[in-house]
Amino acid sequence: MQDIIVQKYGGTSVGTVARIRNVARRITRQRKKGFRLVVVVSAMAGETDRLIELAHAVNPLPTPREMDMIVSTGEQVSIALLAMALHAQKCDAVSMTGAQVGITTDSAFTRARIVDINTKTIRKQLHEHGVVIVAGFQGKDTAGDITTLGRGGSDLSAVALAAVLKAAKCEIYTDVDGIYTANPRIVKNAKKLKRISYTEMMEMASLGAKVMHNRSVMFAKKYNVQLEVRSSLNNNPGTIIMKEMKEMEKVAVTGVTISKSEARVTIHSIPDKPGIAAKIFTALAHAGINVDVITQTTGADRKSSISFTVAANDVARTKKVMSTVNVKMKGIVDYDDNIGIISLIGTGMRMHHGVASKMFDALARAGINIEMITTSEIRISCIINQKDLTKAANIIHKTFQLDKRKQ
Amino acid sequence: MQDIIVQKYGGTSVGTVARIRNVARRITRQRKKGFRLVVVVSAMAGETDRLIELAHAVNPLPTPREMDMIVSTGEQVSIALLAMALHAQKCDAVSMTGAQVGITTDSAFTRARIVDINTKTIRKQLHEHGVVIVAGFQGKDTAGDITTLGRGGSDLSAVALAAVLKAAKCEIYTDVDGIYTANPRIVKNAKKLKRISYTEMMEMASLGAKVMHNRSVMFAKKYNVQLEVRSSLNNNPGTIIMKEMKEMEKVAVTGVTISKSEARVTIHSIPDKPGIAAKIFTALAHAGINVDVITQTTGADRKSSISFTVAANDVARTKKVMSTVNVKMKGIVDYDDNIGIISLIGTGMRMHHGVASKMFDALARAGINIEMITTSEIRISCIINQKDLTKAANIIHKTFQLDKRKQ
Repeated sequence: MQDIIVQKYGGTSVGTVARIRNVARRITRQRKKGFRLVVVVSAMAGETDRLIELAHAVNPLPTPREMDMIVSTGEQVSIALLAMALHAQKCDAVSMTGAQVGITTDSAFTRARIVDINTKTIRKQLHEHGVVIVAGFQGKDTAGDITTLGRGGSDLSAVALAAVLKAAKCEIYTDVDGIYTANPRIVKNAKKLKRISYTEMMEMASLGAKVMHNRSVMFAKKYNVQLEVRSSLNNNPGTIIMKEMKEMEKVAVTGVTISKSEARVTIHSIPDKPGIAAKIFTALAHAGINVDVITQTTGADRKSSISFTVAANDVARTKKVMSTVNVKMKGIVDYDDNIGIISLIGTGMRMHHGVASKMFDALARAGINIEMITTSEIRISCIINQKDLTKAANIIHKTFQLDKRKQ
Repeated sequence: MQDIIVQKYGGTSVGTVARIRNVARRITRQRKKGFRLVVVVSAMAGETDRLIELAHAVNPLPTPREMDMIVSTGEQVSIALLAMALHAQKCDAVSMTGAQVGITTDSAFTRARIVDINTKTIRKQLHEHGVVIVAGFQGKDTAGDITTLGRGGSDLSAVALAAVLKAAKCEIYTDVDGIYTANPRIVKNAKKLKRISYTEMMEMASLGAKVMHNRSVMFAKKYNVQLEVRSSLNNNPGTIIMKEMKEMEKVAVTGVTISKSEARVTIHSIPDKPGIAAKIFTALAHAGINVDVITQTTGADRKSSISFTVAANDVARTKKVMSTVNVKMKGIVDYDDNIGIISLIGTGMRMHHGVASKMFDALARAGINIEMITTSEIRISCIINQKDLTKAANIIHKTFQLDKRKQ
């Protein structure tokens, strides 16, 4: 049997007729090398937004089930077009919707979870045609209703198919070349990484490197699917995301990320009694609001102050929750959306001491004030003023010699 | 159990957000009267053409399977939007694709035939939600591939669902008020018919009254589904299409139709030997070309001449076939696309004598030359010069007092 490769092309890669032809050429080339290919595609860039707009014009609050019904047509159009483009290049191929592939999900419309993939039909089609084009981002529940997987869903479709089909690898084609030591638009000397571990990638992804969604990386880690992130617009090698290897620990730091999309909430002058923090964070969790960095201090007056960060677009909902929680504790609530987070990530941190102090020192020398700090096993994050983010990223990148990193 | 009504709305009726809301209001009104509703919708006007154009931009000759994959998304968008519009009007409803409904077809992509409808799921949804919105024009084959039913497919979906669900009736909403004694744009005094038999409707449909496709009427006749053709833009009663009743025969003539979309082919000076006609019409049949009116004459020189009409857009293919057939018979082949067909239709013709002579006489008095004639049990058609069609339609309409017809 020929090896199976799973490829995934995002909306930009299939955004125009010319780009669809370009993707078809890539597939044809791989096919001629003797691989069998499962190709997962997203909707053409802009198409999903067009459909959502149409839905909202009819009903400002459409039911999630009907949203999935309409939005899933975007990928269905892409798969047919890509199959047609392959046929025009004399490459056999057949398209399949998520439901046809047998991607079974739960019934959480617009954010469904994959529960099972029946590989019988796709294996048969793969055997007959050599190339199967699959609509990403979608599946069906056990009642036969069409579901979508939410943000990053097409990546997840690709990783899940790679896992169940035991593919040799899963290539994620996007509009960037791979994963960099920092965002090249912010840090001029950012270097592309040849390899990165799943865990590092997850820390990178959740902190602003918007290349891949965490759900997919987590899934890939669980099933040990080797990922490669690369560009559909050139032939440069990308970045391989794989399981951690001993030699990765030789390097203390893998990358720097920054994020502007968080806001800080502070509640001052509340009684320093046990259970206050629990009350706040339970209420936020019930509302589905994710809290990132948390700090708590107690002043000389025995009054406490708690600060935490939430995603900037959760601020409105956070205000609502806080106004309810605060009725009894009578604190003063402040919101600051002028903050930024700079993070340093690296598997090697576990082995190398002094990374944190080196980071704090570098920021201090540059006159950048650190407002909050949080750390995990392989990450150190500092909350600073948003206006200092670019400067901080460049300084930290240089301090840890990421610009001198060999691929 | 509440009575089931099947409704079908064409592309114009759901062509804009405002029209979708309008359709939702109609449905809500019927629902409040206590009916359960199965509503079949087409793609929004223009959407199917947009998808076909996109496909052709990628591949000038797309495979029928992939065409059905892309084109079927048009109806899927409509059903979701209509369900959302109903929810906005507080009317419960759920959308279903052809595949989800369980409309099983053969695998003749782009022109599939319905072979079975499993009513289990749709009955369940109808019981739970009261209103089920079904994507017309589509189904799936036994392999699970998406198929489409070809021209007039949405009507067919509606009629077939009405048949299997034993619906009280099947309402076909379109942009005309119903079936008229003649095309009101051609004959000023044309009257809307209250009722018409399936057979009459089939003769009308195939001869230029483009309201409903023959396949659907034939299907309705077979399963005795009562149809009503009416407008989605007003509340006027439409025309009921039903099985023939004794009293229908009291009226000799039901309607007049004209058609410009045919061309005449004549082959002169061929030897008058048996089997010539058979040879010609077998070859045309093999090429899938439908022949309508046929006449054959033999001159004093023992040479024959055969004339027949084909659809104007089949002329190119007919020329090809004729050039092959004619190699041996060495006739002279003429094409005339300047012809028109005027037809008189009525179940009562069987009982009333003199209808044909009255028609010929009226045309003669008006100085209109009849070039060919053909008749069936309930129809008389004359081929005349295209420029005389409007005049002829008005004269015949008046001669048979169709303008005085009571609804």
